[in-house]
Amino acid sequence: MENYVHAIPTKLCFGKGVTDRLTEELGRFGKNVLLVYGGGSIKKTGLYDKLMKTLRDGGFTVFELGGVEPNPRIGTVRKGAEICRENAVDVVLAVGGGSTIDCSKAIAVGTFYDGDLWEMILNPKMGRKALPLVDIVTVSATGSEFDPIAVISNPETNEKFGAGLLYPAVSFCDPTLTFSVPPYHTASGSIDIMSHIMEDYFSETPDSDLSEGFAETVLKSVIQNLPIALKEPDNYSARANLMANASVACSGIPRYGKRHSGWPCHALEHELSAYYDITHGVGLAILTPHWMRFILKKDPSVRWRFVRFARNVWGLDGDDEDALALAGIDALERFFRESGVPMTLTELGIGSEHFVDMAKHADIRGRLTNAWVPLTTEDAVAVFTDCL
Amino acid sequence: MENYVHAIPTKLCFGKGVTDRLTEELGRFGKNVLLVYGGGSIKKTGLYDKLMKTLRDGGFTVFELGGVEPNPRIGTVRKGAEICRENAVDVVLAVGGGSTIDCSKAIAVGTFYDGDLWEMILNPKMGRKALPLVDIVTVSATGSEFDPIAVISNPETNEKFGAGLLYPAVSFCDPTLTFSVPPYHTASGSIDIMSHIMEDYFSETPDSDLSEGFAETVLKSVIQNLPIALKEPDNYSARANLMANASVACSGIPRYGKRHSGWPCHALEHELSAYYDITHGVGLAILTPHWMRFILKKDPSVRWRFVRFARNVWGLDGDDEDALALAGIDALERFFRESGVPMTLTELGIGSEHFVDMAKHADIRGRLTNAWVPLTTEDAVAVFTDCL
Repeated sequence: MENYVHAIPTKLCFGKGVTDRLTEELGRFGKNVLLVYGGGSIKKTGLYDKLMKTLRDGGFTVFELGGVEPNPRIGTVRKGAEICRENAVDVVLAVGGGSTIDCSKAIAVGTFYDGDLWEMILNPKMGRKALPLVDIVTVSATGSEFDPIAVISNPETNEKFGAGLLYPAVSFCDPTLTFSVPPYHTASGSIDIMSHIMEDYFSETPDSDLSEGFAETVLKSVIQNLPIALKEPDNYSARANLMANASVACSGIPRYGKRHSGWPCHALEHELSAYYDITHGVGLAILTPHWMRFILKKDPSVRWRFVRFARNVWGLDGDDEDALALAGIDALERFFRESGVPMTLTELGIGSEHFVDMAKHADIRGRLTNAWVPLTTEDAVAVFTDCL
Repeated sequence: MENYVHAIPTKLCFGKGVTDRLTEELGRFGKNVLLVYGGGSIKKTGLYDKLMKTLRDGGFTVFELGGVEPNPRIGTVRKGAEICRENAVDVVLAVGGGSTIDCSKAIAVGTFYDGDLWEMILNPKMGRKALPLVDIVTVSATGSEFDPIAVISNPETNEKFGAGLLYPAVSFCDPTLTFSVPPYHTASGSIDIMSHIMEDYFSETPDSDLSEGFAETVLKSVIQNLPIALKEPDNYSARANLMANASVACSGIPRYGKRHSGWPCHALEHELSAYYDITHGVGLAILTPHWMRFILKKDPSVRWRFVRFARNVWGLDGDDEDALALAGIDALERFFRESGVPMTLTELGIGSEHFVDMAKHADIRGRLTNAWVPLTTEDAVAVFTDCL
């Protein structure tokens, strides 16, 4: 068991109707609010109108930054920071999914950052001066509401990086706000949740009981609740479990006591979305089973972990451990496919032309080598190729 | 699934050697330190000398309050608060188990409390002005390092209450510091951990997956690691898992999404220790199986939960659910007994003479009635009697 530090300052308010406390929590920080949101789904659902009324009735002055991209761009961050500086904004209010919250983290820190904001993403640091961030989560996926990471893209350089910048001060997670999330994003969000868990679960530390139990609990809960949420979008219990899973999955808690890794599968996916702007969870769904088969073949000594995955997560059994290890991966792939997302790069119109560049670029900062089974750039190309 | 709020401001540093950062963390708050400890085991182990040297070398001025009782008394709290006021103490440093940390919480808040400190315990409130509290945990048991509760006794009135007062600012959990904990306290501490989990696990909410999984994970981990720690006191992995379990068990996290209850079994045990000054975990070991059998008999509709406990925690199986429910309780009782603690009140020299008074006193603030299976005072007397 490895050492760890738990320090999550976020106040997370979970459940039906929790946003009733929004103005109370927001008011602690001031009256000038930057409202950040994405492509406008909050306008379609009526949440935008409801919030604007609440904020105006509460005496808040609202500035707006809409249109945050699904893979939020550094240009949008720059725009948001500019609005905050010009209008003496007191608090950033993000309403949306991980992209909106990530973008808002970068805005909150960027407002006081002296220098180019892409530099800030490339050289992240916790504890920099920042505006407080309050968020209302509308998609169960990244868990950005309970971690300090902002994943930001730079389309000019085809780069996408996760930077540890800032924990939200307050996060509101009302599962009823996710009732309107369409099946495709419900599925890709759930795959994102599972991927966060699996990047830490597939590690060499075998004796950190809490991490193992938490990881298997989250995986089994998503496996149980995603199909229900797809069939009955307003099933509160299913949506609530997915939402609770999302927050905890990326919080770091499921890796307490385990050796850290560079999340190689995420590194590969960030290349895919940087080049092709695809949905993160879909990229992960395609990559993960192939990455698993690849490392299992490259280093058969990791088989015990895949056997445990097959037994404890999928309830599979059998004496042939080689077969069992593969059966667990197959079960995962089947589950992803049945949730309705594309499972090959070809279906997304992606060919092999950039694989070498993407692999080289993924292989920095130890993202591929700081792993249980380290990957070379050739390995990364092979995994991409398996995904065609 | 019920609503919840997560807001734990404590920075918890876990692992071998983490106290190397003590002066750095302590220094953030000032140079005048009140060092609080218990019956002197930290002097026997050499920890006291090591700490005093570290603190003096770091330029700290140390005031001392030793001799905190296993069930810490309000008189000791008063004494500590007095020292803090008289010496302009900046930060309280608790070194020990739950008793020492609980006492220190009450001292930290009591320093600024205007009024009698027993009143403060009877009318607890979070957010009162307080000195910052840093702790070094030396026993895996109460989880006081990761919750805001202080359990304080008043021997004049035979009262013992848990008051929500203050989260520690920083908690240091180094499993190697628990290598010297003798078997009796290793066992009773582990029983305390399990009891914290079980008080929330035995509840009516069936669909909060994370809570269920976290609870079963902690219970299974204690069941696996306690026997190892008893046999090999310096087994790092076993001690580390017990220590990680202790912190999370009382953190509230394993009850997120579940209906809260008044922890009736704890309420009954607090009466036992208030009257007889017994070790908390031992009182819980004696009471818990009898309380379980009592509520199962009183309200057979709760059987499904006991069946789940038998299956998921103890790995038992069978078609006769009545037998299975009881078999889970029997397994728990056997596990407690095999860990070496007394399992009857008679062995502790306790008779029935105060049962009625204790039951009446336990039945305040909804501690017996705000429960999955509410208990009357007659029920409480019956449970006590079963424990003879």
